Amino acid sequence: MSIDQASAQDLQAQLADLEKQYNAFEAANLSLDLTRGKPNSAQLDLSNSMDGILNSAYVTRAGEDCRNYGGLDGLAEAKELFSKVLGVSPQETLIGGNASLTLMFQTLAFAHLFGVRGADSAWIKEGVVKFLCPVPGYDRHFSVCEELGIEMIPVAMTDQGPDMDQVEALVKADSAIKGIWCVPRFSNPTGIVYSDDVVDRIAQLGKIAGAHFRVMWDNAYAVHALHREAPELANIMDAARRYGTEDSVIIFGSTSKITFAGAGLAFMGTSEENLKYFKKHLGMVTIGPDKVNQLRHVKFFGDFDGLMTHMDKHAELLKPRFDAVLQHLEDGLKGSDMGGWTVPEGGYFISFDCLPGLAKEIIALAAAVGVKLTPAGATFPYGLDPEDKNIRLAPSFPALSDINKTMEVFVVCVKLASIRLKLQAE
Amino acid sequence: MSIDQASAQDLQAQLADLEKQYNAFEAANLSLDLTRGKPNSAQLDLSNSMDGILNSAYVTRAGEDCRNYGGLDGLAEAKELFSKVLGVSPQETLIGGNASLTLMFQTLAFAHLFGVRGADSAWIKEGVVKFLCPVPGYDRHFSVCEELGIEMIPVAMTDQGPDMDQVEALVKADSAIKGIWCVPRFSNPTGIVYSDDVVDRIAQLGKIAGAHFRVMWDNAYAVHALHREAPELANIMDAARRYGTEDSVIIFGSTSKITFAGAGLAFMGTSEENLKYFKKHLGMVTIGPDKVNQLRHVKFFGDFDGLMTHMDKHAELLKPRFDAVLQHLEDGLKGSDMGGWTVPEGGYFISFDCLPGLAKEIIALAAAVGVKLTPAGATFPYGLDPEDKNIRLAPSFPALSDINKTMEVFVVCVKLASIRLKLQAE
Repeated sequence: MSIDQASAQDLQAQLADLEKQYNAFEAANLSLDLTRGKPNSAQLDLSNSMDGILNSAYVTRAGEDCRNYGGLDGLAEAKELFSKVLGVSPQETLIGGNASLTLMFQTLAFAHLFGVRGADSAWIKEGVVKFLCPVPGYDRHFSVCEELGIEMIPVAMTDQGPDMDQVEALVKADSAIKGIWCVPRFSNPTGIVYSDDVVDRIAQLGKIAGAHFRVMWDNAYAVHALHREAPELANIMDAARRYGTEDSVIIFGSTSKITFAGAGLAFMGTSEENLKYFKKHLGMVTIGPDKVNQLRHVKFFGDFDGLMTHMDKHAELLKPRFDAVLQHLEDGLKGSDMGGWTVPEGGYFISFDCLPGLAKEIIALAAAVGVKLTPAGATFPYGLDPEDKNIRLAPSFPALSDINKTMEVFVVCVKLASIRLKLQAE
Repeated sequence: MSIDQASAQDLQAQLADLEKQYNAFEAANLSLDLTRGKPNSAQLDLSNSMDGILNSAYVTRAGEDCRNYGGLDGLAEAKELFSKVLGVSPQETLIGGNASLTLMFQTLAFAHLFGVRGADSAWIKEGVVKFLCPVPGYDRHFSVCEELGIEMIPVAMTDQGPDMDQVEALVKADSAIKGIWCVPRFSNPTGIVYSDDVVDRIAQLGKIAGAHFRVMWDNAYAVHALHREAPELANIMDAARRYGTEDSVIIFGSTSKITFAGAGLAFMGTSEENLKYFKKHLGMVTIGPDKVNQLRHVKFFGDFDGLMTHMDKHAELLKPRFDAVLQHLEDGLKGSDMGGWTVPEGGYFISFDCLPGLAKEIIALAAAVGVKLTPAGATFPYGLDPEDKNIRLAPSFPALSDINKTMEVFVVCVKLASIRLKLQAE
C-alpha cells in the first residue's frame, strides 16, 4: 500500500514491526557489502586459463617479440579484436595498460594541460574550464575533473540518456564547456542505454561547441548485457563521421569486467588525428603497454565471437544476482511510494531513488547493522546529491545468500526512514 | 699510434686504406642496430616460465584475490621482495605497473602541477622551475622535464658521479632548482657507479635546497652487474635518514631488464609521508596495478637470493657482448687519441667520446653503410651535445657476430672522421 494512503495508525503499527525486524538485524552481527562493482570469483574463474595460455609462444602476428620493448599503442591483433568492442576501426584504436581510467585521465590531462593540437590548444589557456556531468554518474569520472581543476556542471539523466535539450543549451551558452562524460550502455548507475536519438545528438555537439570539445564516451559495459536481447547502443563514431565530428569522440573500454579486474586490458578509440597527438604525449609517460598480457588476451578469446560467448557466461552468473535485488524491491516496495528503481538489462548497478532527503539516513541505518552501501552522494560531482535521494546498489560481488540478506535489511531501512519521515510530517 | 704524432703522409695513407674498407662496407648492404638498451632474446628466455607459473593459484599471502580490484600500491609480498632492490623498507615501497618511467613522470607531474604537500606546494606556483641533469644522461628523463616545461641545467659527470661542487653551488644560488636526475649505479650511458662520497653529498642536498627539492634516483641497473665483484652503490636512503632528508629521495627501479621489458614490474621507494601524498594523486589516475603480474614475479623469484641468481644468468649472456665492443675499441683505437670510452662493470651501455665536433659525422657515416647508432645529442637535454662528441653504444641486443661487424664499421668511421678532421686542420 502507498505510504501516502496509509493512516497514521497503520504507519505506527508498521513502524513498530519494522523496528523489531531492525533490532533483530542488529543482534545478528551482520557483515555485508553491496558497495563495489567488482566481479565475483566465479566470474574471475572463467578466465583462469589465461595464465599459461601462451605456452612460451611470445611472438606476435607481425613477428615482434612481445616480451621486449617497442610499440606504444599495442599489438595489431589486440587492436583488431578490441576495436570491435569500441565500434571503430583498428587504425582508430589504441590498446593501453590495465586501466581505462588511466587512459581517461591522460586524455583529459593532456588536453587540459598540454593541448589537443599543440600547446596553444591547451584548454587551461582559456581560463576556467567546465565539463558536463550527467547525474547520477560515476564517481571516478568526477574525481578526474576535480584533480585537474575542471569545474563540473551536473545535467539531468532521463531514461533515454542525458537531457539533450539541457546539454545543447548549456554548450551553446558557455564556450568554457569542453566536454561531457557519458557511460552510454548500461549507464553507471542507472543501467539505461542511450537512445539512438541521444547518440545522434551527442555526435553533433562537436559542431555546436568549439573545435576542442570532447565527448568522453566511457563504454565500460559495451558487451556486458544480462541477456543477448538487451538493447544495443548506436555507434557514435559512425554518427560522428556523418557530421564530421570524429575528433570530438573518444571511446573507452576495458576487459576489467571481462577477464580480470585490474589485470586486464584498457583501450580507446578515436580519430587517427587525435591518436597521433595523444601518442606524442603518451610517449613521454611510458615506453609502451604490457604486450605479453595483450597477446594472452587475444589468444584466450580467439575472436569477437569468442569474446561474446565468454560474456554469456558472465551473464549467467550475474543475472540471478540482479534478479534477487529486483525481487526484494518488487516484493518489499512496489506501490509503496517510498522509492523507485531501474531495471537494467546489463552493466553492474541498480539505481534506487528513495524519498528526497533520506539517502544518507537509509545508508546510515544499514551501516549501523553491518550492511555497507555505496556512500550517499557518490554518484554526484563533489559528492553532493542535491536531493539526497540516490543510492547505488551493486549486486555483482556478494554470494546470492548475502544479497538476499542485504536486500532484506535494505528494504526495512528504506521503510523505516520513509515512515518516520511521514509521521514527522503529520 | 696517436693521430697527433702521425705525419700528413701517414694519415693520407691510412685514409686511403680506410676509405677502401668503408666502401667495402657499403657494398655489403649491412643492416645493423646498436641503438637500444634492449635485452636479447636469450635473456628474455630466462623468464619464459613466468607465464603459467601461478597454476590458477591467484590468492595472495594476505588472502586477497589478485584477479580483482583493490590495493593501490601493490602486494605485500612484492613490496617485501623489491624493497630490497630499492634499499628501503617495505613500508617505503610502492609497486606500480609495467614502467618506472610512468612512476617518474607521475612523481614530477604531481609535484609540479598538484604539489608534494597539497596544492600550495605545487612547484609551478613559484614560476620557473629548473632541474639539474648530469650529462651525458638518459634521454627519457630529459623528455619528461621538457613535457612538463621544466628547464634543464646540464651538470658535468665525473667518474665518481655528478660534479658535486657544481651541483651544490647551483642549488645554493638558485631556489628555482627543484631536483636532480640520477642513474647512480652503472649510469646511463657512462656506466660509472656513484662514489660513497657523492651519494652522501646528494643525500644532503635536501638540506641545502628548499623543502620540496627531489632527488630522482633512477636505480634502473641496481642489480645489473656484469659480475658479482662489481662496485656496490651506497644506500642513499640510509644516508638521508642520517640527515633527516628522507622526503627528498625518491628511488625508482623495475624488472624491465630482469624479466620482460615492458611486461615486468616498476617500483618506487621514498618516505612514507611522500608515498601518502603520491597515492592520493595516483588514486585519481588508476584503480590499481596489475597484481596478477606481481604475484607471478614473486612466485618466479621466490626471494632476493633467487633474483640475484637470475641476474647472474643475465650477466653470463651480456658480458661477452660488452667484451666484444671493448675489444674492438681497444684493438682499433687504443693510443690513437681519436676518442675515449668507459669500461662499465654493469648496466646496458658503453659511452664513447670522440674528438669534439665529430659525433654527428661518425653516426652519419655509420648510418650510410647500414649501421644504426643512437642519434648524436640524445644523451643531452634538448638533444644538444655542446661539444658534439658523445656516442652511446648499446651492446645488449644484437648477436655477437653482429656486434663484431658493427664495431668493425664503428672503428673505421671514427678513424675516417678523425683523420679527415686532422688533415683539414693542417
